Amino acid sequence: MTAYDPDNIFAKILAGDIPSVKLYEDEDTLAFMDVMPQAPGHLLVIPKAGSRNLLDADPAVLSKLMPVVQKLANAAQEAFDADGVFVAQFNEPAAGQTVFHLHFHVIPRHDGVPLKPHAGGMADVDMLKAQAEKIKAAL
Amino acid sequence: MTAYDPDNIFAKILAGDIPSVKLYEDEDTLAFMDVMPQAPGHLLVIPKAGSRNLLDADPAVLSKLMPVVQKLANAAQEAFDADGVFVAQFNEPAAGQTVFHLHFHVIPRHDGVPLKPHAGGMADVDMLKAQAEKIKAAL
Repeated sequence: MTAYDPDNIFAKILAGDIPSVKLYEDEDTLAFMDVMPQAPGHLLVIPKAGSRNLLDADPAVLSKLMPVVQKLANAAQEAFDADGVFVAQFNEPAAGQTVFHLHFHVIPRHDGVPLKPHAGGMADVDMLKAQAEKIKAAL
Repeated sequence: MTAYDPDNIFAKILAGDIPSVKLYEDEDTLAFMDVMPQAPGHLLVIPKAGSRNLLDADPAVLSKLMPVVQKLANAAQEAFDADGVFVAQFNEPAAGQTVFHLHFHVIPRHDGVPLKPHAGGMADVDMLKAQAEKIKAAL
């Protein structure tokens, strides 16, 4: 596996060099809206500590991260009155990884509504901001 | 969301009432081969504590679970010389959940090889046992 590249897009979001529609932040974690959503409410949870993906992460970082993933999953479920929530984490391009900073996808699901393709089209930022307000209200 | 049903298949595996091809066990966690694999090496990691899925889990259980998911992901990557690893966790049927005890799927991926459908056909147990030996050797 390749080493962590600190110039990845999520590192730039963490540094404030690229904007994001933020949902939650604490000392160790950031959650924000995916700009290429597979469904309404599709969000990402990332650790502030740099790792390429799950495989090279500090286990202590994972232990702090997952309760936040859970918190966001419950908020997204409630905000979108979802029938289910899909949580996914891709390691390396063969598994679908496109940004090389560890991230968990949290995607509200509704019965009979298929997901859009991963890393498809860019969403309207105002729409993402409106969705983010719903999720933050449910946190 | 519905309450935890202690009669689910994974609870029976934990109780020893149903066999499984085990990979790893500690005080809080069990890992075993998925009997309906989407790719060679497809395994599951579950907490011994009962929760329906991620949404109702004890956060402390998640904190202990994820370093084990990581350990198994690395072992599966190594054992199958995989190009990537897909980690997925389904909450409720709308998201693809078919067994109602929290579990993380860990699936080795190879470039250009699509996944088989989720919860497809039953695998040959001897084949799963042979795959498990490779993963255990990489742990």
